[in-house]
Formats: sequence, C-alpha cells, structure tokens
Amino acid sequence: MLRRGCRVSAGLFRAPRIAPGLRSSTDALVSRFCPEKTDLKDYALPNASWCPDMLSLYQEFLEKTNSRSWIKLPSFKSNRDHIQGLKLPSGLVAATDKGDWRIFTRCIPVAGQGYEYVIFFHPAEKKSVCLFQPGPYLEGAPGFAHGGSLAAMMDETFSKTAYLAGEGLFTLSLNIRFKNLIPVGSLAVLNVQVEKIEDQKLYMSCVAQSRDQQTVFAKSSGVFLQLQLEESSQ
Amino acid sequence: MLRRGCRVSAGLFRAPRIAPGLRSSTDALVSRFCPEKTDLKDYALPNASWCPDMLSLYQEFLEKTNSRSWIKLPSFKSNRDHIQGLKLPSGLVAATDKGDWRIFTRCIPVAGQGYEYVIFFHPAEKKSVCLFQPGPYLEGAPGFAHGGSLAAMMDETFSKTAYLAGEGLFTLSLNIRFKNLIPVGSLAVLNVQVEKIEDQKLYMSCVAQSRDQQTVFAKSSGVFLQLQLEESSQ
Repeated sequence: MLRRGCRVSAGLFRAPRIAPGLRSSTDALVSRFCPEKTDLKDYALPNASWCPDMLSLYQEFLEKTNSRSWIKLPSFKSNRDHIQGLKLPSGLVAATDKGDWRIFTRCIPVAGQGYEYVIFFHPAEKKSVCLFQPGPYLEGAPGFAHGGSLAAMMDETFSKTAYLAGEGLFTLSLNIRFKNLIPVGSLAVLNVQVEKIEDQKLYMSCVAQSRDQQTVFAKSSGVFLQLQLEESSQ
Repeated sequence: MLRRGCRVSAGLFRAPRIAPGLRSSTDALVSRFCPEKTDLKDYALPNASWCPDMLSLYQEFLEKTNSRSWIKLPSFKSNRDHIQGLKLPSGLVAATDKGDWRIFTRCIPVAGQGYEYVIFFHPAEKKSVCLFQPGPYLEGAPGFAHGGSLAAMMDETFSKTAYLAGEGLFTLSLNIRFKNLIPVGSLAVLNVQVEKIEDQKLYMSCVAQSRDQQTVFAKSSGVFLQLQLEESSQ
C-alpha cells in the first residue's frame, strides 16, 4: 500500500475513533508547534522582498500577538521539522534519510522569488490570516500568480489551521472559485475560518483578497480529516 | 484595476462574445503552441531523475505521436514563451522587463527536485495525459507530495488542455477530492478530459492515479473561461 500511495479517506488509516476528551487541547498543540527556542530557520520573517503592504500588515498582527489572542506561526523548511516529537499514523512513517526535503510552499529558497508568506493563528476563534506575496517564479498568466500557487497556499493555510484547531491532518477536498488574478509581487490576504468540526472532519472556508478588501482574488472551502498524533516515545 | 488584480469572471475582461466560426481551430492552436524549431529549452524531456514507470510510459506515448493522434506538448520556462506572437486581452499586458519569470510548475530548475512532468494532448478527443513525478521539494506529509502541488499540476494540465481544445484561458473554479497520497519520486498519471464547452466555458475533469490504475490519488473538475487571443501585429 505504502509503495503506491497512502489512503486519506476517513477510517482507512485504521485510526480508532477518538473521543473528544482524548484530543490534545489547542493550547498544547500551539505550544508544540511554536517552540520558544529552536535552531531551525523561521522563513516567516520579513525580508527585503516584502512589499510595504505586507510589511505593515505583518507589524499590525505582530502587535496583536502581545496579548496572545493571535499567534505568529513559525515556518520551517520541512514539515519534518514541524512534527518533531510526534508519532505519525502507520503507513506514514517517513524515510529517515537525510535528503534535502522541503515543504512545497518553501521550495524556492531565494527571498522574493517564490512564496513569501506568514500565518497568524487565533486559537480562541479557530481562524487564521495568511499574508501571501507571490514572486516571479509563481507565475501563470504573464505578471500574475498561477492559480495553482494560490491553491497550494490555501491548502497549506487550511492545513496548519486544521492541525492547530483540531488535529486536522489531511486534505479530503478543496474547492476554489477564482475571481481576480493576483499581480506578482503584491499582497493577498487569506482569511481562513474553521466553520465546524463534525464526524472527525474539519470544515473550513477561505477568502483571499486585497488588503483593503476591495478586490476578492478567490474563495475556497476545504475539508480536513482529524488524526491524533501520538507523542513519540523516542 | 490592474494594480489590484485582474478579473477573470466571464465578461469582465470586456471581451466580446465570440462567434464559434471565429474561433481558432485546434490544429492552428496546436501548431502555434508546438513550434517545430525553437531555441527555447523544453523541460518536458526525460532526465536521470525520472523513475522507470515514468520513462516507459513516456516512451509509449511518444510512439503514439507518430500517427499524430497524440501530441507531446513542449514545456518552456515561462508562459511568456508559450504565448509569443499572441496579443493578450486588455488588463493582461505583462511588464516587458527582462526579469527572471518562471511558470510555477517549472519553478525549481534542478532535475528531480521539484516538478517533473510531461503532457500529451489528443486533439480529436480533446483530452490529455500528464505524467507527473513529484520531487522532494514538493513535500507535504513526510515522504509524500503536498496536496497543493497536485492541485497546481491539475490546474496546469487543465489550463494547457483548455487552451488547445478551445482557447480556455482562465481557471474559474477547481474542485478536488483527495483519495490517496502520492509518494515522492513515484509516478502519478493525470487523465484530463474536456467534458463540454458551453457559454464560453470549458468544463473539464481529471483523475490522477497510479500507472496500473489500482490507486486513485485524486479526482477533480475545473471550469475555464474562453478568451480569444488575437495575433500580435508586432
């Protein structure tokens, strides 16, 4: 099975149904996800490529983190760094080789060329904001971001939000309606919300728009499967 | 408008409704898309990173191109190369700077690290096959391709098919149901079909599965907007 793929449909991981009381709290998930000390490089920090809109909105949200209502999520090179200390479901045991693995949305290392983004998460309201600035390597129509690059950014923001809000791990479905193209080098603000958690699934929505909310780039919905990650004994 | 985005909804480009007789034929579109002589590098050619399944299926389809029933599509570094000689709709006039622009699905230049893919198109049946091998920079869950990387690959295959089958240019919607994860370094075969063309829209479907069709990775549908691209007078 692993050789060909790994099923993501509910139940096919043979994960037992998890009683709500056994779930990790959002606080515990956030603490595990946001280590106070780490040697890992955080890619979700301002650099010279960020446009003024992105920089100033980043500062606005950063100030909101002082009250802990919002949390700035770190973004490491690989999901392998994000899941340290967790035991993955059977069938998802990653090769332990030291190869150069990268999470897709951090695939381009040079600042400004590819994905520039930072995600802020609001634990109490189970929502996130992603500030996304597509670079020239994310082009579709000349001068504009590829629809697929926005789809991937939405999926990634859904994914991190689903994990922190309720141990949502795998995308079951993703539906996107595109409205306007995003100019390369400009800011798109993705507002993600967990709509409901039901039957081991998280139902989420996203609106991607300009900072002044005058231009909607796309709207989407996503469904994620909940899977409890055990702490590794190692 | 262009500063904030570019509308993709039908009619908002102010594109006149195009009578069917004025449309370019699929043959003309294919000829324009697949130049017999070019100095541009074609990235849709085998390299040492391709797995045996990808190589052998590529050879199978390449043989089918001899009868011209199937066409192997070239894949250049940027969509700007693919649209040479065409005039884009107003609002989509790309900056003419000589910056390093790349189409998103060719954003990672080192063979095997990112997207490896080749698309074959069947003009008579308005369908395509994309052979897709995700590399380690496209990771989501450890050892598996990020759902967003598959979403982008589907969008790109839809896009090229929609253009050649009926001048479909912009993604209006994309709906994906994920079934199984794709192991990094293995082959996913995307079968794309134009289901109908109606009211200036192309309705398309895609199934991504293993070569032996035993494992379905994802199913999707997409709707694309038709826009006639005038030939440039330059």
